[in-house]
Amino acid sequence: MSNQDILDRLAAVVESRKPANGGDPEKSYVARLLHKGPDAFLKKIGEEATETVMAAKDVDHGGDKTKLVGEVADLWFHSMIALAHYGLTPADVVNELARREGLSGLEEKALRKVQDRERLGE
Amino acid sequence: MSNQDILDRLAAVVESRKPANGGDPEKSYVARLLHKGPDAFLKKIGEEATETVMAAKDVDHGGDKTKLVGEVADLWFHSMIALAHYGLTPADVVNELARREGLSGLEEKALRKVQDRERLGE
Amino acid sequence: MSNQDILDRLAAVVESRKPANGGDPEKSYVARLLHKGPDAFLKKIGEEATETVMAAKDVDHGGDKTKLVGEVADLWFHSMIALAHYGLTPADVVNELARREGLSGLEEKALRKVQDRERLGE
Amino acid sequence: MSNQDILDRLAAVVESRKPANGGDPEKSYVARLLHKGPDAFLKKIGEEATETVMAAKDVDHGGDKTKLVGEVADLWFHSMIALAHYGLTPADVVNELARREGLSGLEEKALRKVQDRERLGE
Repeated sequence: MSNQDILDRLAAVVESRKPANGGDPEKSYVARLLHKGPDAFLKKIGEEATETVMAAKDVDHGGDKTKLVGEVADLWFHSMIALAHYGLTPADVVNELARREGLSGLEEKALRKVQDRERLGE
Repeated sequence: MSNQDILDRLAAVVESRKPANGGDPEKSYVARLLHKGPDAFLKKIGEEATETVMAAKDVDHGGDKTKLVGEVADLWFHSMIALAHYGLTPADVVNELARREGLSGLEEKALRKVQDRERLGE
Repeated sequence: MSNQDILDRLAAVVESRKPANGGDPEKSYVARLLHKGPDAFLKKIGEEATETVMAAKDVDHGGDKTKLVGEVADLWFHSMIALAHYGLTPADVVNELARREGLSGLEEKALRKVQDRERLGE
Repeated sequence: MSNQDILDRLAAVVESRKPANGGDPEKSYVARLLHKGPDAFLKKIGEEATETVMAAKDVDHGGDKTKLVGEVADLWFHSMIALAHYGLTPADVVNELARREGLSGLEEKALRKVQDRERLGE
């Protein structure tokens, strides 16, 4: 199964946990976060980003890479809960990434700006 | 879209930008971040997580959903740069998500803990 | 150091940089952030929090403590810019901290909850 | 009492909660975080920064300013726990802020860089 297939299947599970689709906050962690509303899952995005950064710093010093994979998985999963709440899907995000890659020269343009800045002493 | 999964294709592009694979910090934004080292791209993960949270709060008040998609795309993309640096791929993350979904009862177990906490007044 | 409290003095400087008080975005970094609006300085809070975490992890592995002091200073300073924008001051924050400390038993109550949670397997 | 006096007193309380000073993780929230080690309190810094950003966005839309004060208080308080762990104090941070303010022209220098960048299309 492709990454996209897996993400689509997970998105369908998250979708089914919405209160409007019968998700039960007493039986599902996702339903519970969606029921509590944006602050509950947005806070988790900030938290999991910090845990990703800490796990990466640990790998720099001999730490376990599987922990880093787990933290990025947590970060992406809570992003998917937020996407679902706003009627969006991981496919929207992946398609946006593909669109950017397709825009030839984009990376080069971003780079030139950064180089100009550095020349100025940043 | 090619037959190849988009995330795999993007990961291959990021991989080719590594200094060891000839990525040129003068020509590529990704090569430049990888060349600067972990703090440069880890800092971006914290930054893009914050921008995701702000864009989501704006949608709550009538803001543009495409901006939220763009911020999550930035967050995932910079996560992929970090993964590449540590010899990992988005497939590792997606497979971890699939593995968790497959572990039946996992969500229910996580939920019971949270419910117990709430009963105690948290 | 003057008789006046340093945080109060810094808050007065930030206050004078508000557009309404004649702060000039062409001459002052603070005036410029305040002129750009909330997203500009709130984004910096997320960024500086991440840099604080990274600097702390570096100290764990022999890194420089003065870098950590500098990152916390950045974090508090950008918090003060946000406070000013919303008509608040560092004294409001410090007084809230004092108020909490004065509420005897508060820490113990918070702790009992956390201990109860752990007993339940968190 | 000045802000600095209050921060110093709070720092002394945090200091007394260190395991080496007899802080008891069974009786004190701060002792418990210090006992668990850096990841426990660093994670809180990322979490409280995100909550600060969300509370600020809420004020933009008519929300309660006292909530924002409380979140910044949480952010600064957990910063103080980290400082204590690394043998640092809030006075170190405030003195660093004073030092920067004293360096005349610093803000102007930072600004010129940012303006140069913007001229280049950032």
